[in-house]
Amino acid sequence: MIVLNEIKLDKDKKYPLYKQLYKGIKDLIIDNRIEVNTKLPSIRETCKIFNINSSTVVSAYNLLEKEGYVYKKTGSGTYIKNIDVDNTLDNKKNLNIIYDFQNLTADSKLFPVSEFKELMNVVIDRDGGSAFDYHESIGYLPLRKVIKSHLEEKNIFTPLESIQIISGTQQGIDILSKTILDYGDIVITEAPTYPGALYSFKSRSAKIIEIPVDRDGIDITILEHKIKNFKPRVIYTMPNFQNPTGFSYSLNTMKKILELAEKYNTYIIEDDYISDINFNNKKVKLLKSLDDNNRVIYLKSFSKTFMPGIRLGFAVLPIKLSQNFLLGKHFSDISTSGFIQRIFELYLKEKMWDNHIKKLSSIYKMKYDLTKKYIKKYIPLYLRYYRPDGGLNFWFALPDGYSSKKLEIYLKEKGILISCGSRFYSSNNDTEYFRINISSIEIKEIEKSIILLFKYINKFIKNKNNKTLIHPINYFDF
Amino acid sequence: MIVLNEIKLDKDKKYPLYKQLYKGIKDLIIDNRIEVNTKLPSIRETCKIFNINSSTVVSAYNLLEKEGYVYKKTGSGTYIKNIDVDNTLDNKKNLNIIYDFQNLTADSKLFPVSEFKELMNVVIDRDGGSAFDYHESIGYLPLRKVIKSHLEEKNIFTPLESIQIISGTQQGIDILSKTILDYGDIVITEAPTYPGALYSFKSRSAKIIEIPVDRDGIDITILEHKIKNFKPRVIYTMPNFQNPTGFSYSLNTMKKILELAEKYNTYIIEDDYISDINFNNKKVKLLKSLDDNNRVIYLKSFSKTFMPGIRLGFAVLPIKLSQNFLLGKHFSDISTSGFIQRIFELYLKEKMWDNHIKKLSSIYKMKYDLTKKYIKKYIPLYLRYYRPDGGLNFWFALPDGYSSKKLEIYLKEKGILISCGSRFYSSNNDTEYFRINISSIEIKEIEKSIILLFKYINKFIKNKNNKTLIHPINYFDF
Repeated sequence: MIVLNEIKLDKDKKYPLYKQLYKGIKDLIIDNRIEVNTKLPSIRETCKIFNINSSTVVSAYNLLEKEGYVYKKTGSGTYIKNIDVDNTLDNKKNLNIIYDFQNLTADSKLFPVSEFKELMNVVIDRDGGSAFDYHESIGYLPLRKVIKSHLEEKNIFTPLESIQIISGTQQGIDILSKTILDYGDIVITEAPTYPGALYSFKSRSAKIIEIPVDRDGIDITILEHKIKNFKPRVIYTMPNFQNPTGFSYSLNTMKKILELAEKYNTYIIEDDYISDINFNNKKVKLLKSLDDNNRVIYLKSFSKTFMPGIRLGFAVLPIKLSQNFLLGKHFSDISTSGFIQRIFELYLKEKMWDNHIKKLSSIYKMKYDLTKKYIKKYIPLYLRYYRPDGGLNFWFALPDGYSSKKLEIYLKEKGILISCGSRFYSSNNDTEYFRINISSIEIKEIEKSIILLFKYINKFIKNKNNKTLIHPINYFDF
Repeated sequence: MIVLNEIKLDKDKKYPLYKQLYKGIKDLIIDNRIEVNTKLPSIRETCKIFNINSSTVVSAYNLLEKEGYVYKKTGSGTYIKNIDVDNTLDNKKNLNIIYDFQNLTADSKLFPVSEFKELMNVVIDRDGGSAFDYHESIGYLPLRKVIKSHLEEKNIFTPLESIQIISGTQQGIDILSKTILDYGDIVITEAPTYPGALYSFKSRSAKIIEIPVDRDGIDITILEHKIKNFKPRVIYTMPNFQNPTGFSYSLNTMKKILELAEKYNTYIIEDDYISDINFNNKKVKLLKSLDDNNRVIYLKSFSKTFMPGIRLGFAVLPIKLSQNFLLGKHFSDISTSGFIQRIFELYLKEKMWDNHIKKLSSIYKMKYDLTKKYIKKYIPLYLRYYRPDGGLNFWFALPDGYSSKKLEIYLKEKGILISCGSRFYSSNNDTEYFRINISSIEIKEIEKSIILLFKYINKFIKNKNNKTLIHPINYFDF
C-alpha cells in the first residue's frame, strides 16, 4: 500500500498546502519509497487521508504531472512515472556535455559509410523497385543464408528456417515478450541487467526474478533454487561481456545453465550485443553453440558493432517457437526494411564485415587498455571496480551507503553523463553501483575524462548528504 | 494420447481456474505438445482429470476457441487448430499465380526509385556517419517539421511534440496496444476491419466489440449503445476508404463519433492508409481535422502510397498519450531508421511527394474506372458488390450460405488470390464476403482478370457443396 500517510502537512504554514503535498509525494518518488507504475490514491481518498479539499489534491497531482513525476490514465487514475527513463530518452542537446559515459555506440566517424554508400547504389541498380517492396516477415533469404554461414564459423549449426531478421535486439526482446509471455508469467533475469529487457517483460505484466551475476556469470545455485520454485517461462542472459558489468560466463556456468533449462523445461534468451569485439585473446564461446537441446533463443545486434541507425539484427529460434515469433514479428512492423537487408547481405558476403570488425576491435582494444591504465592510476581508494572481460563497460561501486542516483544527477550538472545502477535493476532501487562506457570518448581524451570523473566523485563523496542508502545492494563480491 | 494431466492447476490462487486451464492448454499447443487436429478430451473427461466443474472447462474451451487455438465440430468435440496464419504470411512463390487480388501495394515499377537514389546520395554526402547513428525515438526533427506543415494543408494543427515517427502503421497499432491497453480492456472496431489491428488488440488480451460499418461509416446507434455499456478504452476506425469495404464516413458520422468519444471519455484511432489517393473529386476530410477535444490518435502509413519497404509512417497523438507512446516506441525498436527518415524529409520537402501522389492518383483512377466498368459488364446476378469511395478495394458478397473461405481456397488452386471475409472479423468465422484489390493488376490485364475471376466463381457456385454457411453474417445492407 502506498505510504502517503507518512507525509506531514502543516496547515498553519504559509507554504501552500498543495505544494506541501506535491513536495511530500515528490520526495517519496525520488527516494524510491513508491514503486514506478503504482497508482496514487484517488483524489477522494487523498482528501480523506489528510482531511483537505479536493482542489488541493488536484493542484498537487497536476503539478506532479506537469513536472513529469506521475502520469494519468484517463478513467483510471494517476500513476508514478519512471523518472529515470526520461534520461534514456532525453535528448542531450540542451546540456553542455563534456564527457558522455552513457553512450554505448562507437563514434560515428568510425562507421563504414563510404562502403555502405557504394553497396547501396549497387543494390538499387541491381534490384530497382523490388528493393523497396514488401519483404517476407522472416527476412530476406540471401541475407539469412550469409548469416547461416557466419554462424557456422561460430559453431552454431541451425536450419535456415530458424533464422529470423529483426529490427534490432530490442525488437527481438519485445516480440519474445509478446509471443512467449502471458500475463503473470515468471521471467528470470541477471541482476543487474539491460533496462530495455526489464521494460519489455514488465509491459507484459511478467513477474521478474533477479539472480545476481558475478565474475563467472549468473549464480547457478540461486538460479536452480529459483527455477525449481518458480518455473520461469524464460531466462534472460548476456553470457558475454554482460551489460552493465562486463562479466562473462565461465564455460562451466554455460553448461550448467543449459542443463537446468533442459531439466526444468524452460528457455534461455542469449542477448549477444558485442561478442564480436573481443580483445582479451580468450576465445569467446556463444551459449547457443553449446545448445544441444534447442533451449537457447539467440539474439544478435549490429548496433554496437556496426551502425545503430540501420536498425538490424537477427534471432535464432528453437523451431518450436519460430512460427509464433514470425507472427509476432509480422504484427510488430510487417518486416525489417528490405532495402537495408539487401545492402547488409552484400556487406557480410564481401568480407567487408570482417575487415570492419578487425578495425573496430583494434580501436576498442586501445581504448580499453588506456581506460584500464588510467583507472588504475587515478582511482580513489574508496571506489571499487571490476575489470570487464570485453566490451567497453566499466562497473563501479561507491562506498556503502552512497547514492549513485544522486551521483548521476550531480555529475550531469557538471557536464558528465554516467548511468546509475538503479537503471539496471527491476526494482529501480537506488544503489551504490554505476556504469561508465568509454565507446564515445575519443582516445586522446580518455586520460582527461577519467581524471575529471574522479575529481567530481571526490567532491561528491565529501558531502555526507549524499550518503542516503540504508540498505546497499550487495550482489557483487569484488 | 493427450497430455492434459501435465497441467498443474492451483486452486488456491487468485487467478481464475478456467484461465489457468486455458493457459495450460494454450502453452501445450504453442509448444507443439499437441498435434493439430487432435481432439481435446470431452468436457466430462477434463472435469475428472482435474476434479473441477464443467463450467470451468467450458469457459476455458470457449476462450481457446475465441482466441483461435481450437475449433469445435458440432456433435463431435473440440479440436486443435492449425495456428499458423499460413495465408497471411505465406510467401506466394511456390504457387503459379495468375492474378493477385490480395496485394494492396502498387506495382513496384511505379516506385520513385531514381529520385530516392539521388536523395540518398545527397543525405550521405551531407551527413556522413551521423545519418547512421542512433536517432531520437520520437523521430528526426526536420522530418517532423515537414510533416507538421503537410498536416496543416489538411487542416490538422498540432504541436510538434505530438508528431511521432513510426516504422509503419502496424507498429503504431502495436505500440498503442502496449501503451494504452491493459489486460481485459475493451476495444471497439469496425466490422469488417484490418486483421493486423485485431491481432494486436487480441495479443494484449483486449476484448473486442465489433460494430458494423455501412456506406456512411460505423453504425452510430449501435456504437453509442455499446460505448455506454462497455466503456471502451479506444475505438479503432478507418474513416476514409475503409479496409476492406472501401466505405467512407459521412461528415455527420464523423461529427457524431467525435461527440461520443468526448461524452464517454474514450479515444479514437484513425488509421489513414490511403486517403491521399482520392479520385472521386469529393474532398477527403480527415477525422483528426475535426477533433477539437484531442480524442483522435491519427496514424499515417506511406506503405500503400509510397514504398512499403521503407517502413515509415507517423502518428499524431493527444498530448496526454504522447509520453507513454514515446516510451513504447523506444522499447519496441529504439527508433525508426534515421537514414530513411533523412531521405524522406527531403522527398517531402522537395515537392517530389506531391508529384508522386498526383501520378499515382491518375493511375489509380484509371484502374478504378476500368475495374468498375468491367465489374458492371461481367458481374453475375447473384453477386453483390459495393462501389468503394476510393482506394482499390472492392468488397463482394456471395449468395447467402456460400463460404468465401472455400472460395478463397478454390481460387488459389486456379492461380487467383482473393481475401475471404473471415480474415476481417474478430471471430474469424466464415462469411459470404470477400475482398479483391486491384493495385497489383496491370491496367491491360484488368478486363481479363475480372472475366476469369467471375468465370471461376460461377463454377464454384454451381457446386452446391460450397453452400455451407448456416448463419451468414448480415452486417451490410447493399
